[in-house]
Amino acid sequence: MKVTIIGSGSWGTGLAQVLADNNVDVTIWGIDESQIDDIANNHLNSTFFPGVKLNPAIKATTDLATVTGSDIVLLSVPTIAIQSVCEQVAPYLDKKAIFVNTSKGFHPDTNARMSDVIRASVPADKLSSVVSLIGPSHAEEVVERLLTTITAVSQNEEDAKTIQRVFSNDYFRVYTGNDEIGAELGVALKNAIAVASGILAGIGYGDNTRAALITRGIAEVMRFGSAYGGKKETFMGLTGIGDLIVTATSRHSRNFQAGYEIGKANDAQIYWDTNKKTVEGVRTAKVVHELAKAKNIDMPIIEEVYKVLYEGKEPKQSAKDLMLRELKSE
Amino acid sequence: MKVTIIGSGSWGTGLAQVLADNNVDVTIWGIDESQIDDIANNHLNSTFFPGVKLNPAIKATTDLATVTGSDIVLLSVPTIAIQSVCEQVAPYLDKKAIFVNTSKGFHPDTNARMSDVIRASVPADKLSSVVSLIGPSHAEEVVERLLTTITAVSQNEEDAKTIQRVFSNDYFRVYTGNDEIGAELGVALKNAIAVASGILAGIGYGDNTRAALITRGIAEVMRFGSAYGGKKETFMGLTGIGDLIVTATSRHSRNFQAGYEIGKANDAQIYWDTNKKTVEGVRTAKVVHELAKAKNIDMPIIEEVYKVLYEGKEPKQSAKDLMLRELKSE
Repeated sequence: MKVTIIGSGSWGTGLAQVLADNNVDVTIWGIDESQIDDIANNHLNSTFFPGVKLNPAIKATTDLATVTGSDIVLLSVPTIAIQSVCEQVAPYLDKKAIFVNTSKGFHPDTNARMSDVIRASVPADKLSSVVSLIGPSHAEEVVERLLTTITAVSQNEEDAKTIQRVFSNDYFRVYTGNDEIGAELGVALKNAIAVASGILAGIGYGDNTRAALITRGIAEVMRFGSAYGGKKETFMGLTGIGDLIVTATSRHSRNFQAGYEIGKANDAQIYWDTNKKTVEGVRTAKVVHELAKAKNIDMPIIEEVYKVLYEGKEPKQSAKDLMLRELKSE
Repeated sequence: MKVTIIGSGSWGTGLAQVLADNNVDVTIWGIDESQIDDIANNHLNSTFFPGVKLNPAIKATTDLATVTGSDIVLLSVPTIAIQSVCEQVAPYLDKKAIFVNTSKGFHPDTNARMSDVIRASVPADKLSSVVSLIGPSHAEEVVERLLTTITAVSQNEEDAKTIQRVFSNDYFRVYTGNDEIGAELGVALKNAIAVASGILAGIGYGDNTRAALITRGIAEVMRFGSAYGGKKETFMGLTGIGDLIVTATSRHSRNFQAGYEIGKANDAQIYWDTNKKTVEGVRTAKVVHELAKAKNIDMPIIEEVYKVLYEGKEPKQSAKDLMLRELKSE
């Protein structure tokens, strides 16, 4: 088995650690020369995991020709880059590969789900199938080999099982699933709920409020996901409530952090002025706002996140409106 | 409206704060003279909320005759004391009162739910109905007037609405519900899952593991609760997933803390040797162990908590067994 990981960020590095621990031939491809050099020669990714030793068997390169001969191509780049990365990678493949998606969100122009984007961007003779490897999993903990559970979701059961077998070990436990729509919508939407959770924390609300938000949040995700063809039970699992909890309650989460800063400033402008990293939940709020309108789905939480981010609504007012409204709902 | 709160602990005091803020005539009855004096004269409950000012309209006494004339009696004592407190209080009542239950657990001998215990312990001519006021609500945040949502659950819809009206305000939002079984089982069982969450944290597991535990935990609570007559959708609401999240992710939680110490020591003996406070989850694990056996319900998480607490099983081994087992489940 030869695996190429596209992207030298935190999650790509965390998954490379898992594969190298499993004695799988793994190479990280990236464009940041200093990061690639750090991984290849120092066995570190100091940008994301200062001081954490990586398995020295992890290879790293800036040469995309490394893709040739791969059985598995794992994409660990932001959603906005998925299409172009697929188009760059495909010509180097000499056989059908399993494409592993780890991104949580939508195509920037078409609002398509990630698996659909990959299927549309990789020629059929280069693609076995797409497997989404998603669930409650902060890279910071995976790279330290802390026990993590995750789901390999695919329309192709055999490929899902291959990914399960290749990645599973004592600390990284992979389940398989086939509800691609439910799983991908669950992990995408939860990022927007996590932004809301961060906003409430930044304003000064406590654990009681957060529990109420998450409870209403999973109901909202389920409503949206079912309307778009996901199975209800999927939202009760790792890619639903599991991923929502880990993202909405943890300081590791970039989505939570972005929301926290916005809540503290009581103004989203601080985000637009200062943020340089991809915060998927911010984009997801916009996509979900559009998709929910198209099918007339009631999404009070994500709608308020949208208003705060894109219409300049004051976060404190949003929180108040949301909570007053919610009194009727349970 | 005259309300007597039985118990001068943190939750009784938090709810007295809410009622006094709503201009309701509220008196706390308790047996700890220094605490009662602190509340009545200093407008503080320094034992639980050092430095937090209480509404000076809250009255407090050690004289149980204060119960006479009450329209509402709110019980805020541990589950083991509910029956005897009901038997003490009832003779002082001069009319039918609404009994508000806030305890989360089971009768120590009969394993009965709290509403059933109260109904069996208060004569019919003193009892309008039982309303359980339960949900994701740390007293520490309620007393500081942080936004909290909670459910008033009763077989008697009118009494549930009365409790909703008397308690609701800007920061304390009360929903009504009628699935008494589902709600009371949800809030009771979550304490045992919170002990498990604390144990994992104490051992050194991270947010990824906790998210997996909570995801599997709510499935387990739902399985048990449905078998005993609760409605599935109740476990998706504030008294299910909501209360589980707040308890299993917060340092405020006594159940989480007890588990944390056990996990850190890798031995439950430390709990039995040193703990002096009521930790409902510890008792709940035993009750659920028995009730699950009676109906042959699969409860892997609470079963491991039981083994750690009552059979001396090593927490690290328990965590390992649980997680290996769980690989098959999603």
